[in-house]
Parts: sequence; C-alpha cells; structure tokens
Amino acid sequence: MIAVGLPLSILGSLLHWPVVMMFIIYSLTIVALASYMGRATESIAVHTGPRVGGLINATFGNAVELIIAFFALKAGLITVVLASLTGSVLGNLLLVMGLSFFVGGLKFKRQKFNVFDARHNSGLLVFAVLVAFVIPEVFAQEMNDTKTFALSVGISIILILLYLAALFFKLVTHRGVYQSIEAGGGHSGEEHETAEWGKKKAILILLLATLAVAYVSESLVHTFEEVGEAFGWSELFIGVIVVAIVGNAAEHASAIIMAYKNKMDIAVEIAVGSTLQIAMFVAPILVLISIFFEKQMALVFTVPELIAMVTAVLLAIAISNDGETNWFEGATILAAYLIMGIGFFLL
Amino acid sequence: MIAVGLPLSILGSLLHWPVVMMFIIYSLTIVALASYMGRATESIAVHTGPRVGGLINATFGNAVELIIAFFALKAGLITVVLASLTGSVLGNLLLVMGLSFFVGGLKFKRQKFNVFDARHNSGLLVFAVLVAFVIPEVFAQEMNDTKTFALSVGISIILILLYLAALFFKLVTHRGVYQSIEAGGGHSGEEHETAEWGKKKAILILLLATLAVAYVSESLVHTFEEVGEAFGWSELFIGVIVVAIVGNAAEHASAIIMAYKNKMDIAVEIAVGSTLQIAMFVAPILVLISIFFEKQMALVFTVPELIAMVTAVLLAIAISNDGETNWFEGATILAAYLIMGIGFFLL
Amino acid sequence: MIAVGLPLSILGSLLHWPVVMMFIIYSLTIVALASYMGRATESIAVHTGPRVGGLINATFGNAVELIIAFFALKAGLITVVLASLTGSVLGNLLLVMGLSFFVGGLKFKRQKFNVFDARHNSGLLVFAVLVAFVIPEVFAQEMNDTKTFALSVGISIILILLYLAALFFKLVTHRGVYQSIEAGGGHSGEEHETAEWGKKKAILILLLATLAVAYVSESLVHTFEEVGEAFGWSELFIGVIVVAIVGNAAEHASAIIMAYKNKMDIAVEIAVGSTLQIAMFVAPILVLISIFFEKQMALVFTVPELIAMVTAVLLAIAISNDGETNWFEGATILAAYLIMGIGFFLL
Repeated sequence: MIAVGLPLSILGSLLHWPVVMMFIIYSLTIVALASYMGRATESIAVHTGPRVGGLINATFGNAVELIIAFFALKAGLITVVLASLTGSVLGNLLLVMGLSFFVGGLKFKRQKFNVFDARHNSGLLVFAVLVAFVIPEVFAQEMNDTKTFALSVGISIILILLYLAALFFKLVTHRGVYQSIEAGGGHSGEEHETAEWGKKKAILILLLATLAVAYVSESLVHTFEEVGEAFGWSELFIGVIVVAIVGNAAEHASAIIMAYKNKMDIAVEIAVGSTLQIAMFVAPILVLISIFFEKQMALVFTVPELIAMVTAVLLAIAISNDGETNWFEGATILAAYLIMGIGFFLL
Repeated sequence: MIAVGLPLSILGSLLHWPVVMMFIIYSLTIVALASYMGRATESIAVHTGPRVGGLINATFGNAVELIIAFFALKAGLITVVLASLTGSVLGNLLLVMGLSFFVGGLKFKRQKFNVFDARHNSGLLVFAVLVAFVIPEVFAQEMNDTKTFALSVGISIILILLYLAALFFKLVTHRGVYQSIEAGGGHSGEEHETAEWGKKKAILILLLATLAVAYVSESLVHTFEEVGEAFGWSELFIGVIVVAIVGNAAEHASAIIMAYKNKMDIAVEIAVGSTLQIAMFVAPILVLISIFFEKQMALVFTVPELIAMVTAVLLAIAISNDGETNWFEGATILAAYLIMGIGFFLL
Repeated sequence: MIAVGLPLSILGSLLHWPVVMMFIIYSLTIVALASYMGRATESIAVHTGPRVGGLINATFGNAVELIIAFFALKAGLITVVLASLTGSVLGNLLLVMGLSFFVGGLKFKRQKFNVFDARHNSGLLVFAVLVAFVIPEVFAQEMNDTKTFALSVGISIILILLYLAALFFKLVTHRGVYQSIEAGGGHSGEEHETAEWGKKKAILILLLATLAVAYVSESLVHTFEEVGEAFGWSELFIGVIVVAIVGNAAEHASAIIMAYKNKMDIAVEIAVGSTLQIAMFVAPILVLISIFFEKQMALVFTVPELIAMVTAVLLAIAISNDGETNWFEGATILAAYLIMGIGFFLL
C-alpha cells in the first residue's frame, strides 16, 4: 500500500494529476502510513515498559490528525482545522464507539467493560467538551477578538496541564488501582507481549512514517478547496467528515477488531481515549502553535459544531455509563452520527 | 361515558352548540374512547402472545395523539402539532412519572424498578430528544426551508428505523435478557393472563373506537382557535398542556394505578415508553405524512419547547437513574412540570 | 480577628479611610464573623437535637450570602446580586468540592462518600439549576418584563416549597432511611456530641454576629463600585468571584478540613448542600423580597452566568456520581473553576 501510495503521491503532484484523484491517493497513503505508525508505537511501548509506553502511545496516538491540522493551520484554513477537531471528536465518540458496540454485539449478546475507566472518562469528557469548549463559545459572544484569544490561550494551557495530570494519575499515582477484578489474568499476560519490531527499527519506522505523513498531509491540505467544489462539499463537511475519517482510520480499524475479539475495555479506551487526546491535547496545542502563525485560532467552534459535540458526549455517557454494550446501543450511536453527518452535509 | 359522549358530540356539532362546551364534550369523549382502545389492545395482546402483542401495544399506544395531530396537521396548525408533541413528551415524562412516583411514594417508603430498562431508556431519551430534536433546531438556523425539511425527513426515517430496531431488540434478540431477577416469578404469571374480550370482539372494538376517535378529533381540532380566544390561551399553551393531557389521559390513569399497586416497572415503562413512542414514532411519522399535505412540517420546535424537553429528559434521567423512587422525587418532577406549565401559560 | 476587624470597620468608615483598604477590612471581618455564626449554629444544633438542628443549620448556613445580597439588592445592584448567586453556586460546587477532593486525595488514595445522598442531590441540582434557572432565561426572551417577573415569582414560590419539602423528607419522613451501612457507627456517636457553648450563649452569639454581619455588609456593598474601578474589575467579576469567596469562606474551610479527616460525606454535604440552599432558598427569597424594593429582580441570569452554572452542575454530577473521589477528580473540578474565573475576569 505504502510502496505504491508514496511514489504515486510524489509522482502525481509533480505531474499535476487531477486534484480529485490526488486527494484520494493522498488520503489512502496517509491511512496506510498511520497504520505503520501505530505498529511502530506499539513495538516501542513493549520495549520501554508500560509507563513510557503509555506516554508514547498517548503522544503519537493522534499524531496524524495533529500533522494534518498543523498544515491546514499554516495555510490559514482555521475553519477546516476546527471542523477536523469536531470531526475527530464525533468520529471517535460516535463512529468508532458505535461500530465497535454494533459489530461486537452481532457476535456477543452482552459485552462488558471496565466501569471505573468509563466513569473516569465521563468526567473528563464533560470537563473537556462541556466546560472547556462551551465556555469560550458563550463568553466570546460578548468579548472582542483579543480577549477571546487570551481566554483560548488560558484554557489551552489548563487543558494541557490537566491532560498531563491525567497521564500522571493513570501511569504513576493510581496505576492499577481501578483494575476490574476479572481483568487480572489478562494483565500479567499483557506484559509478556512480544514486539513486532526491534527497538531501533521501530523508532526508525516511526520517524520515517511521521515525516512521510507530514509530506503527504501538506499536499492533501491544498486539495481541499478544489475537491469541495468538485463534489459540492463545504469546508465544514470536508473537515468534519472527510478529514476526520482519514485521520482516524487506523483507530477505527483496531477498535472494531478489539470489539470483535470481545476485548471491549480496549475498544472503549481507544474510542474515548482518542477523543480526550483530541480535546485535551491536540486542540489546545494547535491554539498555542497558532500564536506563531499569521492567523490566530481561538478555541471557538461554530454553534452546530459545538452542539454536535455536546450532544455526542451526553449520548456517549448515557449509553456507556453502565459498563455494558449490545448491538442496539451501537446502532443508536451510529444513528446519531448519521444524523449529524446529514446535518453537516446540508449546512 | 361513551354512550353519552359520542351522541352528544354528533348532536352538538349539528346544532352548533357553544364552542367551549363542545370542546369539553369532545375532550371527555376522546378520553373515554382512549380507555376502550387501551382495553381492546390489551385483550388482543393476550390472544396473540407477547411478541405480536408488544408490537400492537407499541403501535396503538399513542394512536390517539397521532390521530389528533393528524387532523391538526391537515388543518395546517403546525404550531399546535409541534406543541402537542412537546406536551406529550413533557406530560409523560414529568406529569405521569411525577404523579406515579408521588402517589406510589405516599403508600410505600421506597419503590424499586428495573435499572436495566431505565438505563436502556435513558440512552434512547438522550438520542431522541438531545440528538434528533436538538440537531435540526440548531442546524436550521443556518439553512433555508428546503434544506431544513430535507434534514427533518432524513432524521425522521432514521428515528423510525431505530424505533423498529428497538422493538426487534426488545421482542426478539434480547427478549428476557435484562429481566431483573426478582421479576422472575411475575413473568411466567403474565403469560397466563386472561383476556377481557374475545379476539374478534377486541379487534372490532379497537377499530370502532379508533374510527370514533378520528371523527371526534377532527371536530376537536376546529374548536382550538375559539377556545383559545375565550380563555386567553395561546396556541402553544393549548398544544403543550391541553391537547397533551386529553391525548394521554388513559396512560396517566393506568401508570398511577400501577404505582399505587407497587408495580413500578410497569408505571415507569408506561411513562418513558410513551415518551419514546412520541419522539421516535409519532413525531417522525407526522413529518413524513406532512409531505402529502399543503403545509410541510419540519422537525423544528420553538426554543422554549426544545429547552423544556431537554431539561425534562435530563431531570428524568438524573432522578430515575438509581432505580429507586420516593414521594419527594415525585414532588420534584411535578414541580418541574408546574414551572414549565406556568412558563407556557405566560408565553 | 473580630476584636480587631469590627472596631476597624467602624473607625474606618467614620474616618473615610481609602475604599480599597476598607473593602479588605470589611471582607476579613465578615469571614471572621461567619465562622462565629457557624460555631454558634452548631452548638444550638447539639442542644436542640438533630431535627430542629438540621433546620437551623439549613436556614443559617447561607445567612451571610443572604445578608450581603439583601443590601446589594436594596442598593439596586441587581447585577451584583445575580452574579453573587452565580458565584456562590460555582464556588460551592467547584471551588469547595474541588479543593476537598484534591486536598483529601493528596492524603488518601481513594475516598468514598454516601452514594444515596449524592444521587438525591444530583436530582435536586438538575431541578434547581437546569429547570428552575434555565426555563425563565429562555422563556424571558419572548416575554415582557411584567410576565418575566411573574414567572420568576411563581418559580421562586415553587423552589421554596420544594426546599421545605426536601427538609421534611430528610428530617421527618425518610430520616436515616438512606444511611450507608458503614456510617452506622459514626451516626450514634454524632448524637453524643458536646456543644462548644451553652444554648443561651450560642443564641446570643448568633444574634450579635448576624447583626454585625448585617452592619458590615451594608458598608461592604457600597465599596464595590470604587474597588471595581481601582482594580479594573467588572461588577460581574466582583459578584461572581470576590463576593462569593467572602460569603462562603467559612464553608470552604470546614469542607476542606473534613476532607482532610477523610469525612467525605460531610465535605460533599457542605459543598452540595450549600449550593442547593443558594439555588432553592436564598435566590428565590431575594426575588420575593425584591417585590418590596424599588427595583424588582427577575430570576434571569446573563447567558455566561447560566451556562457556567449549568456546565458546573453537569460536571459535578458526572464526577461525583460514583461515590468515590481522588486527587485527580479534584484537580479536574478546580480546572473548571479556573477556566470560568478567567472567563468572568475577561468579560
């Protein structure tokens, strides 16, 4: 896939192939590279042990979204960046979680996952989306741009600090404290995992894949305008649906595979953990990076984006709060994603 | 009641009796007919077994609201239809549930109900009201009427499909899976229930009562304007409070009786199940029917209606989530209904 | 503290000392007096037994806020009064609860509190803030001032009645019903508590301290305008942050001490109970009192105030719903308070 996609990406951009075709090639290449990055991160995590591994996973887990958003930000496409953040939240929380519950539920009648983690994550989702995203939106109505950006910077710093505190809590002060009892056996097995690649090879692959993603992402970002015109898609729709699916394809695949293997703890962790990374790490980092760019990005979403995220969080909490899933809960979450997709398409 | 109400309804409309008097006669006649329809549905359910019976119950449970709303829609009273949907949601979720908890709680110190069902229903309430009703409202702010209606049709189809999936889940794939243990004994007894009427008689009564409701509803709808003027009630108040109480009187009575008998599972099922039927079946069906009428009805409520429904759902979930009730929880829910009633009256 | 603060307060206002200095003296004096009031109330509660004691605690618990708000209302500072109510809700729910969880969590890995009370309180928080505060805000958009105030009065009466019903529920019909089992031992010990002061002495101290608070509060209120100008603080910021911290300092201290002693039941009860008193008793009483003043106060907050309270309630519920706390949950709640504080400062 990469062996074909990467050369095609370079060749196509040199020979000025049709933009829509290049958009598809770039997208598929990024999806393939992202899966390599995921495998490399996992290998490194096995070599370094769970603490450093958890940290690396948390940092590189959404590297692709971060890279795409970085180049969109550099190109001044603030609307697309905010939309892609919205789309990543909706995609992880509704599409990934919904598909996991649905596909897993087709095979198993009832699936369980760790309630402690689900509740810990509920609190953070409410904090990140309902407090940290809603407050600047509402307060910005009565502020000028300078104050709005100042508020965004303040909130971004708080978000990143709390994200680091969450890692410290999970990996240091409360490691293993909230393990569910039945997971006990699986836990010891986890540490004996063998790495796919050696440490040095994994680091090399991770670096090369990241560089390649960066190269392709920069090209991808510049196709958005023409692709939008060709298909009649708005910038918002491209950001919320298209970029989000490309940027999160790797997580989607692994969460669904885990659900199908009845490892719901991991499936839910991927879906919700990824959402939290986007909201508490990727989004605020982008706000802070934008200080050095021509156009600053305040943490102010459009009202449809914000309401979609808020209702997605409330739905995810209402459905996941009991620590059990079935196919119908998956269908409900997917129906919510579909409704929002239609909404953003028509907007 | 019917023996008097039905002739009076026909006589009064022929002789052009005062509108306010006819409004009262029509309303009482519908309430009486609705109780017959409920008894007929239950008899049929006993004869056909739980699966088909559950389906019939689900379909005819809110037939009265559907019929009244149908004629209001035909008369172009979009505001009244949306208000009556709002009122049915608020009436079932707050008035019926509140009265059940309060009345039951006066007799019993603590009453319990099936937590699994409560959580299953919580998810659906959040989906139907917080996602499917809020999204079109917010997105419609930035759409023209054609797109708004297209979005409404899309959401309506998704709602009906998910409603059918919920029936399939409850009656087929997961029947009996989430029974609470203590309900085990009652379950087998349920199937030995004897029907009040024979199968043919019950079907005949159901058909005749439905026709009679349709006839009286059409007349009732045409009294709204004059009644509103006579009492100083707005269309909104008539829809939200008056129509909703008339259309749901039968459920109100049976839910409260069940609570008084300490059968809280059934009382909660009536209140929340009825709300879900309105939101996921009656409302979208009316949107789809309106395609063939002169005036199309988008799924866009007024902001006060929407906020009332959203806060009602959040309150109902916060209070019912622990699977226990007492008189004070009932009083809290009733207080919320009262606050909204005053609000709609003053609007 | 009082022996110095009270004479200084009188002396300073006679000699017209600089306003900012007087603002600080008044504030510290009130904090000191409030702690005396708290100790007197507790002594009286021991002498009168738990029922009357509970009632006195509930009534005098927020006497200081009520008194400050009363004089601000008399001076026509409606904005400051509403802001101080918002600030008390945010201060108790986020600052007090957050500090308790955080400080307690630094000493203990996991702390537990009574889940029944937490859920009972969740329902009331949703009722008071999400229903009783949101409805007038939304409905007022389409009402004139007379109707808005009529709605506010209606809601205020309902809130006070439900607050009295809650006391009746807790102290009479369901006293001890929802005790957690492990608290059994502590409960009997509670009744053998010895009072700090004799009954007569305690009543005298309570009366004198209340009078002194009233005197100092009236002076404090008149410093707001100049202090705001001196520091560049808006009326909103003074109300939401400054007045709220002065008015609630006593609760803050005792909740954190309780958390540090691992008595989380009491710490949570102080934080949430105080919030409910403000929302269901102090706020509606002020609305009703304002009938007799020149300027009436409707129960209509600004949108930023309302959204801050709503998101604070949802966060507090999401985090406290499992009946367990740790330092990270405290940090999350404090981060939310900080975000709102920055927001109100910049507004």
